[in-house]
Amino acid sequence: MTSISNKTFDEIKVGDNSCMKRTLTKFDIELFAIVSGDVNPAHVDAEYAKKSMFHDVIAHGMWTGALISTVLGTQFPGPGTIYLAQNIKFLKPVYIGDEITVSVRVVKKYVRKPILVLTCVCTNQRNKNVATGFAKVMAPTQKITCKRMVMPKVTLSSQDNKINEN
Amino acid sequence: MTSISNKTFDEIKVGDNSCMKRTLTKFDIELFAIVSGDVNPAHVDAEYAKKSMFHDVIAHGMWTGALISTVLGTQFPGPGTIYLAQNIKFLKPVYIGDEITVSVRVVKKYVRKPILVLTCVCTNQRNKNVATGFAKVMAPTQKITCKRMVMPKVTLSSQDNKINEN
Repeated sequence: MTSISNKTFDEIKVGDNSCMKRTLTKFDIELFAIVSGDVNPAHVDAEYAKKSMFHDVIAHGMWTGALISTVLGTQFPGPGTIYLAQNIKFLKPVYIGDEITVSVRVVKKYVRKPILVLTCVCTNQRNKNVATGFAKVMAPTQKITCKRMVMPKVTLSSQDNKINEN
Repeated sequence: MTSISNKTFDEIKVGDNSCMKRTLTKFDIELFAIVSGDVNPAHVDAEYAKKSMFHDVIAHGMWTGALISTVLGTQFPGPGTIYLAQNIKFLKPVYIGDEITVSVRVVKKYVRKPILVLTCVCTNQRNKNVATGFAKVMAPTQKITCKRMVMPKVTLSSQDNKINEN
């Protein structure tokens, strides 16, 4: 996909939905720790994590939150959407290799403003909910199609040794 | 700081608080777009963003959410904290160069379980709230001090040309 387009408020009905799948990698956890500064050992210290109640490193909860934002901002409603609020419950840990499906569904359309409320459900490959919540967005009122920007390539390196690339 | 330690549930009182400052860079926005897949043009397409209602690229709302998680997971209560839920309202756009202060404060301690509710307030350098909400966490019950892991160095490169480093 080289372009990205939206659904406008008028095109969207209650019940409309969209979903996306993403498999968690160690690289994702490291990048998330770097961009957030969240170096909680549950996420980045394998030795600590092995002895913790989750027995291995787990994703940052807000990584799942970020995936919800990705569906809303790039798929549905897409460009022009303004994120107003999110609530999210973190129900189960997400491990490296877990395939997360993020689904959003419109449950309410405001009348006087182009505002939508959507349920957000993130499930793993065993169909267990790992996070659920509600998003509130101002939906776009104009049709937008624009170029899908190609992001730079990321390289992570420890001291002088290259260790991973996206 | 080469180590990271926590406050246990028993050590924490209602009213206790912690804060952290972080200045948004273009690099942060790009990394967040890469790790989340959220290439909404409001964040990564400068040309589009100039013509948008915000007149420039803005941070992903969930970047601010991630900073809240960073305070909770690395400072207060710190290691051993389990993130149960977050709600967050995105009130104002965050621009490159904005210095965001994230403050969390305990407003409720549960009696039967080591659960805390904290208010979360993110302000910019003009002391305007950019995001506010509540976090619910299970606080650690055991004192933990562990090594602060050093994250890999990140390099972003466009095609073959290196463009930025953290």
